[in-house]
Amino acid sequence: MSFSTFIGLFLGIAIVISAMSMGSSILIFVNIPGLMIVLGGTIAATMIRYSFKETLHAIGMSFHILLPSNDIKDKNELVDLTEDLLRLSRKDGFLVLDKQEVNHDFYRHGVRMLVDGYSQDVIKQSLMEENKLFVERATTSAGVFSSIGGAAPAFGMIGTLVGLIQMLSNLSDPSSIGPAMAVAMLTTLYGAMIANLFALPMADKINTWVQEESVRQLMIIEGLMAISEGRNPGMMRELLSPYLENKPSVEEVTA
Amino acid sequence: MSFSTFIGLFLGIAIVISAMSMGSSILIFVNIPGLMIVLGGTIAATMIRYSFKETLHAIGMSFHILLPSNDIKDKNELVDLTEDLLRLSRKDGFLVLDKQEVNHDFYRHGVRMLVDGYSQDVIKQSLMEENKLFVERATTSAGVFSSIGGAAPAFGMIGTLVGLIQMLSNLSDPSSIGPAMAVAMLTTLYGAMIANLFALPMADKINTWVQEESVRQLMIIEGLMAISEGRNPGMMRELLSPYLENKPSVEEVTA
Amino acid sequence: MSFSTFIGLFLGIAIVISAMSMGSSILIFVNIPGLMIVLGGTIAATMIRYSFKETLHAIGMSFHILLPSNDIKDKNELVDLTEDLLRLSRKDGFLVLDKQEVNHDFYRHGVRMLVDGYSQDVIKQSLMEENKLFVERATTSAGVFSSIGGAAPAFGMIGTLVGLIQMLSNLSDPSSIGPAMAVAMLTTLYGAMIANLFALPMADKINTWVQEESVRQLMIIEGLMAISEGRNPGMMRELLSPYLENKPSVEEVTA
Amino acid sequence: MSFSTFIGLFLGIAIVISAMSMGSSILIFVNIPGLMIVLGGTIAATMIRYSFKETLHAIGMSFHILLPSNDIKDKNELVDLTEDLLRLSRKDGFLVLDKQEVNHDFYRHGVRMLVDGYSQDVIKQSLMEENKLFVERATTSAGVFSSIGGAAPAFGMIGTLVGLIQMLSNLSDPSSIGPAMAVAMLTTLYGAMIANLFALPMADKINTWVQEESVRQLMIIEGLMAISEGRNPGMMRELLSPYLENKPSVEEVTA
Amino acid sequence: MSFSTFIGLFLGIAIVISAMSMGSSILIFVNIPGLMIVLGGTIAATMIRYSFKETLHAIGMSFHILLPSNDIKDKNELVDLTEDLLRLSRKDGFLVLDKQEVNHDFYRHGVRMLVDGYSQDVIKQSLMEENKLFVERATTSAGVFSSIGGAAPAFGMIGTLVGLIQMLSNLSDPSSIGPAMAVAMLTTLYGAMIANLFALPMADKINTWVQEESVRQLMIIEGLMAISEGRNPGMMRELLSPYLENKPSVEEVTA
Repeated sequence: MSFSTFIGLFLGIAIVISAMSMGSSILIFVNIPGLMIVLGGTIAATMIRYSFKETLHAIGMSFHILLPSNDIKDKNELVDLTEDLLRLSRKDGFLVLDKQEVNHDFYRHGVRMLVDGYSQDVIKQSLMEENKLFVERATTSAGVFSSIGGAAPAFGMIGTLVGLIQMLSNLSDPSSIGPAMAVAMLTTLYGAMIANLFALPMADKINTWVQEESVRQLMIIEGLMAISEGRNPGMMRELLSPYLENKPSVEEVTA
Repeated sequence: MSFSTFIGLFLGIAIVISAMSMGSSILIFVNIPGLMIVLGGTIAATMIRYSFKETLHAIGMSFHILLPSNDIKDKNELVDLTEDLLRLSRKDGFLVLDKQEVNHDFYRHGVRMLVDGYSQDVIKQSLMEENKLFVERATTSAGVFSSIGGAAPAFGMIGTLVGLIQMLSNLSDPSSIGPAMAVAMLTTLYGAMIANLFALPMADKINTWVQEESVRQLMIIEGLMAISEGRNPGMMRELLSPYLENKPSVEEVTA
Repeated sequence: MSFSTFIGLFLGIAIVISAMSMGSSILIFVNIPGLMIVLGGTIAATMIRYSFKETLHAIGMSFHILLPSNDIKDKNELVDLTEDLLRLSRKDGFLVLDKQEVNHDFYRHGVRMLVDGYSQDVIKQSLMEENKLFVERATTSAGVFSSIGGAAPAFGMIGTLVGLIQMLSNLSDPSSIGPAMAVAMLTTLYGAMIANLFALPMADKINTWVQEESVRQLMIIEGLMAISEGRNPGMMRELLSPYLENKPSVEEVTA
Repeated sequence: MSFSTFIGLFLGIAIVISAMSMGSSILIFVNIPGLMIVLGGTIAATMIRYSFKETLHAIGMSFHILLPSNDIKDKNELVDLTEDLLRLSRKDGFLVLDKQEVNHDFYRHGVRMLVDGYSQDVIKQSLMEENKLFVERATTSAGVFSSIGGAAPAFGMIGTLVGLIQMLSNLSDPSSIGPAMAVAMLTTLYGAMIANLFALPMADKINTWVQEESVRQLMIIEGLMAISEGRNPGMMRELLSPYLENKPSVEEVTA
Repeated sequence: MSFSTFIGLFLGIAIVISAMSMGSSILIFVNIPGLMIVLGGTIAATMIRYSFKETLHAIGMSFHILLPSNDIKDKNELVDLTEDLLRLSRKDGFLVLDKQEVNHDFYRHGVRMLVDGYSQDVIKQSLMEENKLFVERATTSAGVFSSIGGAAPAFGMIGTLVGLIQMLSNLSDPSSIGPAMAVAMLTTLYGAMIANLFALPMADKINTWVQEESVRQLMIIEGLMAISEGRNPGMMRELLSPYLENKPSVEEVTA
């Protein structure tokens, strides 16, 4: 979970809704047919571009980013966890790792393979594949949200055009022009909100998040290899150090 | 065929039409001269950019994606099919492959060449050329749809400008302003719909589809080479494995 | 000449003009000062960007694409022509090539050099230079049309702003507002038409055309080298084969 | 600090405010709810994209650029400083460097490590890491400002749509249309100002500034290595010369 | 100087001014506060992005392109000049070159270094540095004009929004709406003119011009090396030939 993403999404919706309810009833901003055009058209355009499976992956990924999870984010914690596992397995063998708490899905999967006795090569190859697949899917998922972010304003405009044409074709009652135009403009508002409050930032977030998570996964693979080879903990730290951005301060290194 | 693409196209059109028929007659959205400007102008701009042949290829490719086909999509199925063909040809020779059902145009073409007795080199070179040509044509086809997606809104705007100028030049009857503006805005609506419901998503779809199909074709070529050499099925599976994204699970690999 | 480009240009203009003359006099779409702002401004912006020579080359290249020419387009025809020339020169020497009809400017130039007795190295180097210069000029020409396609809508908008400001500054007669706005909007229409009916598609066309023509030129150079060396026709065909996209079918190759 | 950036920011705000106060009270341009939509929405969209830490770094970097600092900017001055430090340390050892005034944070940090007796390798590796981290953070910071520059106009438009829809839904009093539309347009103005006066130029500034500063840091590392090795000052100047854009004039080089 | 650039700039301004003075007084297009917002805001946004020095370089470069100069443009003339200098120096030594007229700043600078007796290596290195610095500065200068071309329309829109909001807040006198809107729209016009008549074409021009000039400078350096080595004129021509786009025709080469 990314806390900031969750707050941002909540805050954005809260601000726009409070602005809508200020000075008028918020009900004037609700228009089910208009919402259906924008949502339906956006979904249709996305379905033309992506398969059902790809779209589901994108939705799953957005939940993964928004919902709370225990997965370790800090790379230094991952190094510490690797040292714990390494010391344990050097003393008592791989089987004892099964009872350790490993707060990272990808890491846990790797540890289970170690416990199950797969050879080092099989573990590495299998996890590298998983990492590659993860990156591919995440890139496609970001593409799904980009597509939504492009289609929503377009269908917002299409909805507004439909509304304006209906209004202009039938100008018998001048007093209805204002409310009719208001309704027509609602779809443009819906499209702009879907794109700017949700889809476009989400696409960017997935893109940056997948880069960080992929680095963590590669680092975990390296750590698992060190555990499997029963390396010296100091050597393991050195092997993982290129993955850390902010290395421990100079003092610790040279101490 | 891509099922999701077909559904998306159908859904999008259904949603926009139902929105149009809600609250007014759908007939106010039909304007033949307006449709002619947008369609004609878009076709004209596309003809300047691409030759007849390229445009026809693009249309053919869009039908290929939209219409149902039996072509195998799953890469694992392709591996299984290759194993079937391989075992058969090792037992009874290449000629017996002629009677096998091969649900993939490209694969079928390769098998026929094998049956007809062409040398391995000739088959490989010929299919590689076909693959290259396929990728080139598909890229150009995606370009045709991109061009349509860019030209349609532009000619929608040109149509609206023409309509507005005609209306503004002759304001004798104020009550006709509304309907005249409605008609003028129709071309903008047509342009936005052509671009966002059809052309732009189609261009993206072709681009991603050609990448997947090209990988399948390269995999089929590799499989045909394995058949032609009468390789061991296990070895064939290993040769094809880099083309599979989600490899069989670790359990199967090490079993 | 590209037939499709010519038709597209003609069709686009015909459609827009027929739309203009429908329901009103086409004369309301003619405004000489407005046309002068858009054309003049576009020319001015292009002159700032490109030298006279570059602009003239661009115009020449657009005529080259639009006007009929006898230049061979089909690469297979070029191979056949090369074979004819090769057989002839092997029998009767290079001088006899002078009387052959060679329907391609670039090829004719090369043949004349062969007839004039230049050495193979000089011919190759000279034609390679010509090819490089051709590609450079064509890229610049496409840039000229891109610049026109970007400047025309901008000056269309500038013209409309000038017209609107003049109209708004002097609102004494309300009945003149409509026609004045119509005139002001004309420049936007002119700009959109110049960009979308002509300049932008032309820039794209030149870019794709130069790629194809450059491949043909490189192929002709290879062919001329084969002629100059008096190679075996079969060998010549093999040397040229990488330049052909759709190679002769497998049957012919192995026959 | 970049003096020109500070002046530019001040000048831009002054000009827009003076334009606002000309001919009317500036109070009509103040609308707290409108400002809240634009600021809040922009912050929300940025929080979805970036974590708190990244946003804080971006704010810190903008202050670093805007506020006055003593950090040496001129690369020639850095060379001169390096020569001073080099001569001093060759005469009296590294410890004496502690009392030297070093007007550059990064340089000062390196000198302190030298004084503290770290080995040359540790210093180089540690400073290289710091430089890499600096570049990464600055690139992310520029991305934060780009995100703000994209979100602000979008939420300006959303605010204007909300305002217009509220106004159009309730047209009972025609005399209130003007002021209500003015208020609705304020958010568009806020969004355009935030993007064009602050966020977009700042993103560009950070991008160019980080490039220059990174070169200076690499140069300082090279200089520290020369000091640590007790090199000849002339040799040191030669080692640093590739980092100088405008080298000392030819006369000095050959004198 | 680029003649076409100068004419284009003059022509564009003349056309727009004549369009403004047609049918109304040109005075309605003059609004000093509006001009100040657009110019001031654009300058402010550019100052945030670039330092004073960079902006001054950009202005200098635009004058260099617009004002007449004697600098040789034709590469063949440069070769001829090099041959003259070469023959002279081979006969009478380098000192006599001092009295030769060399119509190219960069070339003159190199010749003076030759006369002053600098070694070949020093001359080459110094001129290469100068060339690199020239390219860097020109790229930055083009960036300054791009920044102006992006900021001017944005501040034009900001000015128009300010004007519209002032007008809408105070609708007491309906007859003043037209002129007030005209004034508000002036800033949009100013912004569009600055961007499309001046800044954007200038940025493009500098980018293409710097490429050509840099090739000439590299060619001059090569020529100076040939002079300094007292090479044979024919050999010098061969050394410089790769820099010429349109080489002397085949006839001359083989004559």
